Amino acid sequence: MRTFDLLSPQEALARLYRALDDAGVGGDTRLAARRALSTPVETVPTASARNRVLAQEVVSPTPLPEFRRSTVDGYAVRAASTPGVMRVIGEVRMGELAALRIRLGDAAIVHTGGNVPEGADAVLMVEQARPIDQNFAGKIQTQVQLAPGDNIIMEGEDVKAGEVVIAAGTRLREQEIGGLLSFGITEVTVTRRPRVALIASGDEVVPAYAAPRPGQVRNINTPMLSALIERHGGIPLDFGILPDRLDAFEQAAARAMREADVVVFMAGSSMSERDYTPEVVNGMGKPGILVHGIAFRPGKPTLFAVCDGKPVFGLPGNPISALVTAMMFVVPTLWRWQGATNPPQPAVVNAELTHDVRSPRDLEHWFPVRLIEGNRAQPIPSKSNLIFSLARASALVCAPIGVDRLAAGATVQARLFD
Amino acid sequence: MRTFDLLSPQEALARLYRALDDAGVGGDTRLAARRALSTPVETVPTASARNRVLAQEVVSPTPLPEFRRSTVDGYAVRAASTPGVMRVIGEVRMGELAALRIRLGDAAIVHTGGNVPEGADAVLMVEQARPIDQNFAGKIQTQVQLAPGDNIIMEGEDVKAGEVVIAAGTRLREQEIGGLLSFGITEVTVTRRPRVALIASGDEVVPAYAAPRPGQVRNINTPMLSALIERHGGIPLDFGILPDRLDAFEQAAARAMREADVVVFMAGSSMSERDYTPEVVNGMGKPGILVHGIAFRPGKPTLFAVCDGKPVFGLPGNPISALVTAMMFVVPTLWRWQGATNPPQPAVVNAELTHDVRSPRDLEHWFPVRLIEGNRAQPIPSKSNLIFSLARASALVCAPIGVDRLAAGATVQARLFD
Repeated sequence: MRTFDLLSPQEALARLYRALDDAGVGGDTRLAARRALSTPVETVPTASARNRVLAQEVVSPTPLPEFRRSTVDGYAVRAASTPGVMRVIGEVRMGELAALRIRLGDAAIVHTGGNVPEGADAVLMVEQARPIDQNFAGKIQTQVQLAPGDNIIMEGEDVKAGEVVIAAGTRLREQEIGGLLSFGITEVTVTRRPRVALIASGDEVVPAYAAPRPGQVRNINTPMLSALIERHGGIPLDFGILPDRLDAFEQAAARAMREADVVVFMAGSSMSERDYTPEVVNGMGKPGILVHGIAFRPGKPTLFAVCDGKPVFGLPGNPISALVTAMMFVVPTLWRWQGATNPPQPAVVNAELTHDVRSPRDLEHWFPVRLIEGNRAQPIPSKSNLIFSLARASALVCAPIGVDRLAAGATVQARLFD
Repeated sequence: MRTFDLLSPQEALARLYRALDDAGVGGDTRLAARRALSTPVETVPTASARNRVLAQEVVSPTPLPEFRRSTVDGYAVRAASTPGVMRVIGEVRMGELAALRIRLGDAAIVHTGGNVPEGADAVLMVEQARPIDQNFAGKIQTQVQLAPGDNIIMEGEDVKAGEVVIAAGTRLREQEIGGLLSFGITEVTVTRRPRVALIASGDEVVPAYAAPRPGQVRNINTPMLSALIERHGGIPLDFGILPDRLDAFEQAAARAMREADVVVFMAGSSMSERDYTPEVVNGMGKPGILVHGIAFRPGKPTLFAVCDGKPVFGLPGNPISALVTAMMFVVPTLWRWQGATNPPQPAVVNAELTHDVRSPRDLEHWFPVRLIEGNRAQPIPSKSNLIFSLARASALVCAPIGVDRLAAGATVQARLFD
């Protein structure tokens, strides 16, 4: 693979996204004003819809609040009665609409969130009133001058009926769950979670729970990527570990096209003779391979394809490359498949690099760092490329294409592992 | 509540954490070199332990890698044979230890990750070798000069046997799951998930799935906080909605002390006559209320207590205050209870404020903003304090204590909702 032929990670993802748009899959940013998504949908309870993506916009069925409410504990009055003395004519109980009517010189006890009775146009805070005869049933006095509207929320002030309150494509957070439930919307239509086939391979690879013989290694990629994919809306499907045989790859590919929405091959995408992924992917559907080789470390041999509407990835088998390329390329694709306009953003902090880092000029190079002593970033050497260099790391730092050295003392952006 | 008496949010949390440390609960930062946590523990499958907190340090049972491996596809050789012509004496198959032995002038085909045979001290990359008689069984030639160690990972180079590879208190991420499984550690001892009693209250409050009568409102706080707590390791327990009666509060408090590890009252902590939380919390155990009132908006009347070793919160009932105070105070306490040294960090971005924002000088004031057009932060007016001002927001911005105005054009830090 000649590195000067390689696409940048941004160009590579853009090519993948264009092919998905052409296939009508997931969130198409060209349709900014969409009212609904084309992705397959399902209905789920609102209370457990955190992180799911709304498939259709939600229009408010009623105004919010539904009645005129006090924002404080105090007395519903006419602003024109203040400052001065007022007669307390009753109390508005919580959970009931007020039965009484306020005239000039009247006051009614109201609680925070309670209904403001007819005739009142302001609420006097309890700390601004002084009872004249030491009991609430009597008279109060205030020196405060209120204006109409003080300490009142009007009906529909938060949301009017018929307003679009949540757009299609919104990944639901706690506040959207609360907003939907405040209307009594207890079920919601969201895009389906993509089923992601995870296909490991390698004659030397055994399951993580097996005891490897000398020369064998355990498969840690499938459990790592399963955890990652699950957190980002996907449903991981464990396709096991393929032997390095073309027919095994072909069978797994056929099954993945039947059962999955997204296909991830781990190992088998580089250029050695036992790498069957490119050949197999090209038989899986149209348009086929879009990108093979990205100007990206770790993970230069990464492969992107779209086959009959399904995103297909060939990730390197080494665990660091597999995890980092999955974070950088598979995760955003899962959110795009789900149609999310607000996918989760990684936390990024500025940090001062403690040591020089050399970088290949022709690759975008992400290396692990440990953040120490108030945001100094200590690079973690990882010649061996085994997983503990990431277990020791709190973040990744990027040396962009064109840069062959980041100097000790430089300020870099560290992307935290969440 | 006189605002000049109020603790800052940082002082308030520090007071809570000191009381938890004194009670021996959760992660105590004074015990930096701890080898195990005192929090109750349980054993779970490693593959599903993402976000759980390791209760005991993990020591590597074997070196990693367990055998000397090639980092490339190529030929195992003696460095002293390069540059020059070498005889290919065989192949090391994946999943097997090499049976052959390399002498000066020998080469053996090896694959990435495969065992490097005895006698070899370097691996020549396949692209750097040229077969002399067009077949692998013959001879190869290279012009590259290798040094001993090139393209080889030594046994134990990543991790030595007996090394502490993951510290107690580590919140497990994908890479720790991979690291543990690479040793065949398929079960792991983690701290228990805290059970969090969520106690709503208010005569006017009905369940989210009920149809409110005029003057009533739906309880959205319990489902919102349940989603939040679940994402941060807690197990939410729905204690329903209490009427505004002291005996109802007392019964719920007694049950929460039996069944939960953390107790959250929603509403009932301010100063009005129907607010029973302070009185009830003071009867729940020692040392009792630590903080009542924080220089924080939204959520000034927030209450912190520790009762017989359990953190107890009194949060305001208004949904924005309940959600924001839960994010800011309950969430970090849940991670501390679990003993996590690396809790998740919120993403923060710099943004330019589009409009002036007034702020009470004596409060730390967090207000919602929408991020638009490349990180401009547009404040969202929220007089009404209902939940849709957060549903419209992508982030919160802080006006610190002592600041009474943030000016349009100022650069602020926007804390993204995840």
